[in-house]
Amino acid sequence: MKRMSEHAVSPEKIKLLVTDVDGIWTTGRIEYDSEGHEIKSFSALDGLAVKLAGLGGLAVALLSARESDVVTLRARQLGIDQVIQGSSDKKADLDELMAHNDLEPGEVLFMGDDLTDLRAMRAAGIAVTVPNAAPDVRARADWITDNRGGEGAVREMVEWVLRDQGLWEQVLARFI
Amino acid sequence: MKRMSEHAVSPEKIKLLVTDVDGIWTTGRIEYDSEGHEIKSFSALDGLAVKLAGLGGLAVALLSARESDVVTLRARQLGIDQVIQGSSDKKADLDELMAHNDLEPGEVLFMGDDLTDLRAMRAAGIAVTVPNAAPDVRARADWITDNRGGEGAVREMVEWVLRDQGLWEQVLARFI
Amino acid sequence: MKRMSEHAVSPEKIKLLVTDVDGIWTTGRIEYDSEGHEIKSFSALDGLAVKLAGLGGLAVALLSARESDVVTLRARQLGIDQVIQGSSDKKADLDELMAHNDLEPGEVLFMGDDLTDLRAMRAAGIAVTVPNAAPDVRARADWITDNRGGEGAVREMVEWVLRDQGLWEQVLARFI
Amino acid sequence: MKRMSEHAVSPEKIKLLVTDVDGIWTTGRIEYDSEGHEIKSFSALDGLAVKLAGLGGLAVALLSARESDVVTLRARQLGIDQVIQGSSDKKADLDELMAHNDLEPGEVLFMGDDLTDLRAMRAAGIAVTVPNAAPDVRARADWITDNRGGEGAVREMVEWVLRDQGLWEQVLARFI
Repeated sequence: MKRMSEHAVSPEKIKLLVTDVDGIWTTGRIEYDSEGHEIKSFSALDGLAVKLAGLGGLAVALLSARESDVVTLRARQLGIDQVIQGSSDKKADLDELMAHNDLEPGEVLFMGDDLTDLRAMRAAGIAVTVPNAAPDVRARADWITDNRGGEGAVREMVEWVLRDQGLWEQVLARFI
Repeated sequence: MKRMSEHAVSPEKIKLLVTDVDGIWTTGRIEYDSEGHEIKSFSALDGLAVKLAGLGGLAVALLSARESDVVTLRARQLGIDQVIQGSSDKKADLDELMAHNDLEPGEVLFMGDDLTDLRAMRAAGIAVTVPNAAPDVRARADWITDNRGGEGAVREMVEWVLRDQGLWEQVLARFI
Repeated sequence: MKRMSEHAVSPEKIKLLVTDVDGIWTTGRIEYDSEGHEIKSFSALDGLAVKLAGLGGLAVALLSARESDVVTLRARQLGIDQVIQGSSDKKADLDELMAHNDLEPGEVLFMGDDLTDLRAMRAAGIAVTVPNAAPDVRARADWITDNRGGEGAVREMVEWVLRDQGLWEQVLARFI
Repeated sequence: MKRMSEHAVSPEKIKLLVTDVDGIWTTGRIEYDSEGHEIKSFSALDGLAVKLAGLGGLAVALLSARESDVVTLRARQLGIDQVIQGSSDKKADLDELMAHNDLEPGEVLFMGDDLTDLRAMRAAGIAVTVPNAAPDVRARADWITDNRGGEGAVREMVEWVLRDQGLWEQVLARFI
């Protein structure tokens, strides 16, 4: 399932992982009950992803077009401070995140799954997506995870970056 | 998974997409909690489908035999105005939708998944279904999506129509 | 996935379909929210199964070891009158259902998925199970559906019986 | 999917089955509704696993890093007395469980799916995991189930142990 674009890219210099939410951290299912409550489904494996990223010196940010109390709750649980919801222009908000973190595009990875992510994906140094993404997004990604969104895709992406940066073994050693 | 009926059909002239709900927009799972609240699961990918259809000049309507507050909520979120729930005769309600939109059968696509959709499927210019449909429905469809209901089947159908009408590239350009 | 036992059986004489609930009508997932409410997931395809069975002269009964308000709700929606929940001896309760309906074992089909269904499966004329059943149940079934429980397995079983009885085409004609 | 480590292990002497919860008893999905209620999804097949283990003389314990009312509820339903939630050091808590049950490491099996389980897995006589586990966990397990967590993995593990101990046929006989 994995592929590299024709210009092989490497996450070697990445310092910030900016991630869309629906379809990336969640399964992309939009669930409601008959009283209008929304239900979102995350992955337990992704729960450890933020901690692993931090042990390797990587920051994680959320950037979503929708607004959801469940996302606010989950971000707080995982210790993610940089959360932008209700974004109407992800490219502009990505630029702001880069400025805020004092980073250049080559130091930022963007992970998204739909057409509204395409401009941000092109602006970031590396664009990652998932098997369940829209076909035109998959065609423009530098790398595609094996796991679907909400089933460990974020965790897989974090491990991929840390392995490429030669940091995985020392992160793993903390658990052995 | 895709197949065309013996008389190869083309969605070239389609202007209205009439869609069943359960098993098409949703997974076909009927979920309840112990207090009787219903839960429905939609796809984030399908959420963009209505906007993409509109950019290409296509209207979308919902036509369901069941009645559900969750469907009313989701239709409002997606900006779908033409919603018929509690239909006991989908063929008759499809005729009414065609009259209301001043369209001929050849300009209307119907997408359904069960036996109660068969008459409406035959009355419409093009009949589309999903891999999770009843066998007798799959046998009578002009086209079957790759994605299951509730997992992007509506989005896939909209892209299929827009590509056939030569409109996809200009719709996509809005996002690049 | 389908198999017949060494003594090939036929559902030719079946008049009553007795079905376990969890893992047959539902996915076998046991879901709770943090307030103790139970959530159950049924299939929209199975929703039409009871009506199709009735059109072919077949009765449907539910026989479950657990007790659940959600099952009571779903049975009422589908028009299933014969519902036994909280059964501690499914073989004994199956005998009672047979007596109540004035039927012999060869006229009754039992569909279950776990070890607690084995005695009832052996007592019924035909024993059906699902791909997600316990291995020892699959090994003792006369027939195994292609669809998993909660994903159309009951509907598939009803169609299999009606086709074998030569009734499917006339049932289907009601929808064309 | 099944594999044995280079030193082939056997569950012959196992008396206590210590199991992580998320990703083992559940699917590893972390679900919330918009009011902050958590939803957990267990398997009906695993529901019988504790009873089967008991018939074969095996005890079952839960050992989780998270805390959840749903887990407390499910443990009570299944008759599991030994439940440790909120564990910050699973290896230390496993040691305590072994002392409490007066058992040696060779008599204890540990089943987990993530990096935080690795030390406990190494301390136990046998380490089991699931197909949906982290890659580094799969690489260090003695045995991997075919079923995913929350879809019958615990039941499969219990049957594997009982079969190896020559007890399965007599347990099964109780249901025939």
